[in-house]
Amino acid sequence: MSKSNKFITLATDFGLSDGFVGAMKGVIYAINPDATIIDISHEIGPQDVSEAAILLEASYRYFPQGTIHVVVVDPGVGSQRRAIAVETERCYFVAPDNGVLTRALMRENNVKCVELVHSEYFLNEVSNTFHGRDIFAPVASHLSLGIKIGQLGKRIDDLVELPITKPEVRHGEIIGSVIHIDRFGNIITDISIELFRSVVPNKAFTIIIAGVKLNKINMSYAEAPIGHLVALFSSFGRLEIAINQANAAEIMKVQKGDSVQINWRTEPL
Amino acid sequence: MSKSNKFITLATDFGLSDGFVGAMKGVIYAINPDATIIDISHEIGPQDVSEAAILLEASYRYFPQGTIHVVVVDPGVGSQRRAIAVETERCYFVAPDNGVLTRALMRENNVKCVELVHSEYFLNEVSNTFHGRDIFAPVASHLSLGIKIGQLGKRIDDLVELPITKPEVRHGEIIGSVIHIDRFGNIITDISIELFRSVVPNKAFTIIIAGVKLNKINMSYAEAPIGHLVALFSSFGRLEIAINQANAAEIMKVQKGDSVQINWRTEPL
Amino acid sequence: MSKSNKFITLATDFGLSDGFVGAMKGVIYAINPDATIIDISHEIGPQDVSEAAILLEASYRYFPQGTIHVVVVDPGVGSQRRAIAVETERCYFVAPDNGVLTRALMRENNVKCVELVHSEYFLNEVSNTFHGRDIFAPVASHLSLGIKIGQLGKRIDDLVELPITKPEVRHGEIIGSVIHIDRFGNIITDISIELFRSVVPNKAFTIIIAGVKLNKINMSYAEAPIGHLVALFSSFGRLEIAINQANAAEIMKVQKGDSVQINWRTEPL
Repeated sequence: MSKSNKFITLATDFGLSDGFVGAMKGVIYAINPDATIIDISHEIGPQDVSEAAILLEASYRYFPQGTIHVVVVDPGVGSQRRAIAVETERCYFVAPDNGVLTRALMRENNVKCVELVHSEYFLNEVSNTFHGRDIFAPVASHLSLGIKIGQLGKRIDDLVELPITKPEVRHGEIIGSVIHIDRFGNIITDISIELFRSVVPNKAFTIIIAGVKLNKINMSYAEAPIGHLVALFSSFGRLEIAINQANAAEIMKVQKGDSVQINWRTEPL
Repeated sequence: MSKSNKFITLATDFGLSDGFVGAMKGVIYAINPDATIIDISHEIGPQDVSEAAILLEASYRYFPQGTIHVVVVDPGVGSQRRAIAVETERCYFVAPDNGVLTRALMRENNVKCVELVHSEYFLNEVSNTFHGRDIFAPVASHLSLGIKIGQLGKRIDDLVELPITKPEVRHGEIIGSVIHIDRFGNIITDISIELFRSVVPNKAFTIIIAGVKLNKINMSYAEAPIGHLVALFSSFGRLEIAINQANAAEIMKVQKGDSVQINWRTEPL
Repeated sequence: MSKSNKFITLATDFGLSDGFVGAMKGVIYAINPDATIIDISHEIGPQDVSEAAILLEASYRYFPQGTIHVVVVDPGVGSQRRAIAVETERCYFVAPDNGVLTRALMRENNVKCVELVHSEYFLNEVSNTFHGRDIFAPVASHLSLGIKIGQLGKRIDDLVELPITKPEVRHGEIIGSVIHIDRFGNIITDISIELFRSVVPNKAFTIIIAGVKLNKINMSYAEAPIGHLVALFSSFGRLEIAINQANAAEIMKVQKGDSVQINWRTEPL
């Protein structure tokens, strides 16, 4: 990996109205004035580690080789939960050890993790309530200057894993669930295009969600008339239920966690 | 125009909670690590091409010569709508061909447009639902590296135009409409300072909006006592109705599309 | 102070949906293409000078030496209120003279202020409603190029001061107030850790807020069980009342301005 990695992304649940994110950026620039900082989102639901994991998975792969991703959704701040840095073939992560990296790391190879213990890479004073500013931001900035993750702490290999439910595949049926509602009200499920293609026959299937049935996968929203329902694979490769130019989740009263089914006729067992 | 144009602005309806904007920035930096990306807004109403056009018009002229403006409000993504790049004397635009550039281009000279057809400037895999990431971001980043818009595709000159209603000017009367409510609740109309000066006499006119009459144009909010109504020309040169330190639109129950009238006494016809 | 200070922060009440902030950034980059602009927040309540002062105080010290902080919460725009630039040992500020800098400047030494009167550092056309774009942004950008604040205008030393209520300290009692509710619903008071340590005995004190009593200062949220109340000192050194992983302000119905008391037993007078 290249020695200097000026790109640092931030994904937090801090919102933008309290100055938390500003303080983190100040700390990063004070250590490495040549860093380039990119906000992924600061609107993650408070303490919602699971949402953060999904958001990170959806975006981190599009950044340059060597980018340092700082993820601070940290309900356990100040407790015994560990702070970690991770290096993969593609990039770095700096985060609390609470499962927020689980989804991204499932896609990564050669994963090396360390627990952040060397406080010379932290701010001089470390609070018990804001490690984003006092630990994660300075560590990321030092990484961007080219220090090795081995210098940050001791190697570990027992990261906390987020429990991730997978779709249930049965004879003639997949039962998945809604994992995200996006800004447009599009309903994102945990059924991947790979799973769909490997088990669902090309025709004669039925997608059932909130009592509504669909019999077809479309290519784009615009294939349906305005206001009509459409099922397609999202730009991140997941089965998505949408209404062309309207808010499907609101209209169908669908929420995160709701179930989605795909049925098809099978040969008798 | 200078060969390298590192400034790329983004205006979208993606919001900041889904990682869409983060992915676009990652794509841009992966192609041109020295780009400088500026968010204009990601809070445009979903699919609101008209709002995007107004927002772009209000801000694009303040950026450096050669800036590349990427505008992604794209209800037709994945359909036959064209993707375009535009070069003017001042700057570049990259957007879907749905009228989102109409207002800005009315202010520009020497407008050259191309349809984006050369997929070597796109991401390798192009989804049908997220051209912001897969087409517009990479094309903008290549432009920032100095490629010519002629290399991006074939010249066109029949851009889709957004229908823009103009104020109606009659004998002794202008009938305009509200085109925007800003964050402060200030009411922005489509009556420009140029139109006003050219047709309305210096004194003895009446502005009527939501049943309320004003007889005077002020210079600033602060010329009215706190809580009082004021008409003035906005910082973008449009007739604006405001209440000093309060939310005029809320208090007067005025919405986008509402009508505003200016009357004055005229010589008998 | 170093001659070139490329870091410029922005804190405004402009929101992100109107293009105001985009226009400010365009103006800055057009003057200094090598500036690095950092958003502190654009979600400050409209015209809420007091909130802006708290936000600025919480974040500005974490930025590199020489950073230029632009603060535009400006209810008096277009009136006789002065526009100012301030230099301290640590950094610069550019803002309207309405008290928005009061809290930050209480922490600064060697404060030099000028009134911005030299219009050659403004945009050519200055509106009466948007000095953020027309005065503050260009002045900040010129400062980032290394001009001296003395070149910007005439020295003044009578800045407008924001009235700041301080906690009342009595025999056996502190009466403070809530100055901020953060995104998590944590309740931030004006009682500093320094005040607390200097007057409250180590044990046997009672914190009273919204009828609820606490007898202990914790180190972190996580020391309390999930859903339980905790008092601690915030990462900015102020007494904070929180509920572990829940929204204390909502649950306790506490608002900005509410009172908080600390009582302790004293020797008879």
